[in-house]
Amino acid sequence: MVTSPAPAVPPLQRARRDLRDAPFLVAARGGRPARVPVWFMRQAGRSLPEYRALRADTGMLAACLTPELACEITMQPVRRHRVDAAILFSDIVVPLHAAGIGVDIVPGTGPVVAAPVRTAAHVERLPALHPEQVAPVAEAVGLLVRELGTTPLIGFAGAPFTLASYLVEGGPSRNHERTKALMHAAPEVWHGLMARLVDITATFLRAQVDAGVDAVQLFDSWAGALSLRDYREYVLPHSARVLSGLADAGVPRIHFGVGTGELLGAMAEAGAGVVGVDWRVPLDEAVRRTGGRVALQGNLDPAVLFADAGTIAAEARRIVGEGRAAPGHVFNLGHGVLPGTDPDALTRLVELVHGLEP
Amino acid sequence: MVTSPAPAVPPLQRARRDLRDAPFLVAARGGRPARVPVWFMRQAGRSLPEYRALRADTGMLAACLTPELACEITMQPVRRHRVDAAILFSDIVVPLHAAGIGVDIVPGTGPVVAAPVRTAAHVERLPALHPEQVAPVAEAVGLLVRELGTTPLIGFAGAPFTLASYLVEGGPSRNHERTKALMHAAPEVWHGLMARLVDITATFLRAQVDAGVDAVQLFDSWAGALSLRDYREYVLPHSARVLSGLADAGVPRIHFGVGTGELLGAMAEAGAGVVGVDWRVPLDEAVRRTGGRVALQGNLDPAVLFADAGTIAAEARRIVGEGRAAPGHVFNLGHGVLPGTDPDALTRLVELVHGLEP
Repeated sequence: MVTSPAPAVPPLQRARRDLRDAPFLVAARGGRPARVPVWFMRQAGRSLPEYRALRADTGMLAACLTPELACEITMQPVRRHRVDAAILFSDIVVPLHAAGIGVDIVPGTGPVVAAPVRTAAHVERLPALHPEQVAPVAEAVGLLVRELGTTPLIGFAGAPFTLASYLVEGGPSRNHERTKALMHAAPEVWHGLMARLVDITATFLRAQVDAGVDAVQLFDSWAGALSLRDYREYVLPHSARVLSGLADAGVPRIHFGVGTGELLGAMAEAGAGVVGVDWRVPLDEAVRRTGGRVALQGNLDPAVLFADAGTIAAEARRIVGEGRAAPGHVFNLGHGVLPGTDPDALTRLVELVHGLEP
Repeated sequence: MVTSPAPAVPPLQRARRDLRDAPFLVAARGGRPARVPVWFMRQAGRSLPEYRALRADTGMLAACLTPELACEITMQPVRRHRVDAAILFSDIVVPLHAAGIGVDIVPGTGPVVAAPVRTAAHVERLPALHPEQVAPVAEAVGLLVRELGTTPLIGFAGAPFTLASYLVEGGPSRNHERTKALMHAAPEVWHGLMARLVDITATFLRAQVDAGVDAVQLFDSWAGALSLRDYREYVLPHSARVLSGLADAGVPRIHFGVGTGELLGAMAEAGAGVVGVDWRVPLDEAVRRTGGRVALQGNLDPAVLFADAGTIAAEARRIVGEGRAAPGHVFNLGHGVLPGTDPDALTRLVELVHGLEP
């Protein structure tokens, strides 16, 4: 596509579209767009019958690593709901799997790690991630950039703590007891593990940026299990390294966790320009906790989508009102779309939010 | 035992021991006891081999409703750890089961409700609880009062919201979507359901008080899933009715939930003299959120018990230090003992806390 021989445009500049007026990107940069932008965490997923049909015979990791399939699944909610951003269909353990760490996603259970990581020797043996190992993900991004038109694409990675919990526990954990024990009892092993995961995560996100994503979101799904003290000592420096490593990419960076009311101020220091907020903290209060330094994303309780249309509308209006206190507000749920959600309720919610005064 | 014919001593006065100097009761009443009292939520349970042996052939509900067995299980951690309080071995669904509501506890799953409660007609059909239906629980309390010597006994009930979630969802739920949908979409049905559960819970706790418990704890295990707004509108008035209904009983009332950092101020208004705090909010901050009006209970992260002895000791010292800001501090975990916990770590923790300056 680029025919001019010099000066060479770096690849990330080549691939990225000019979407500077897209409401999602305006709000994510702390501005006031023409309408309140809205997208939904897990918008591509089990709530959509067309997704369930596509996934019927394909495992999760295979779907993430098949470019055409990942592209199509990413597109489904964009077509159906007319959301203001697509989010790359992926899974938190994709970069671990791609690096050669034995992990599989078992239906009904979640990620299962073949050899849990609990000692310095285990950490030593963790492989690095090389960009070519996630080439199918970059290829999916390339397909999406062509298909999406003027809709921005959000790249996606799990944050080091959440990845560490899967590796240390060997799978999903309610209480993260082995993970917390490791950080407290063997902090040097812990920080060594986190440093490896910073590198893997940074490589994974850089590959997505180079392929053309317009923003990235760093998901620290389990950070809400930590006290602020532990978060600051054992987690924040590592998440900050991932996010600061992308500072030169020129794309908005979003940082999200659930149950993180106590951590919002610290998370706002990690380097992202947007912090995601779950439904437990009203957005105006979240502005106070984050010092008004960052744009906010959120925060409708996904369970409210199971109530009647009047309730959903009233809650959406309240949230848009509270979000006006923030320097930039991206409307979203406070956590991912729940599997049993009526997709039509999501479509109607997008229309409603688009009709409200930003 | 009572031979004097008049004035009749009410039964609750007859059964209760005089333990006014017990450190747990002193702290729970907002005083400064000779030593920091300590007990552990779920201290009677799967962390103890002697518990697993007793439960090998007996289902959960059967164990709760067999007085000798409930007594013995309640005693096990008192003997082993020398904690400052016993908590009656029971389960949150015991009063529902006793009232004749079809609920069973399925190993590996949790409570399963035969006919979920989702309409006004379902609520109408809910039976009341009569005190004689929980006679085995009262009998267990009677046995314990004789066996415990100078150790106070805490009675136990689930709060209306947590019970409602089990009834509406039909079992344990991560997201409580049907419960939240009901409260928002059909508030009159919701409040009707909660009113029934207030009566059941009040009857269950009154039976325990009459049989001789020295304190009660109202567990709202799932309240942390709610925003403050929803908690105040749909839950707090009902929990307050349960707690105020026991005001005349003269025993300390403890109110606990997990992930309730945003709700602590509201929970402190519900009428309990003690509010439980999980590990996410330091106790000195919890004093601020509760206005210094209540004693506090907590708040060691149960996962820390999987770390080394030095870490556990340092965390316990920090918590006792922060707890000095509270008008009364009962040392506890921030949530229940995790199943894989080393019981010896709990015994050592009791010794350590007892050696610290209150």
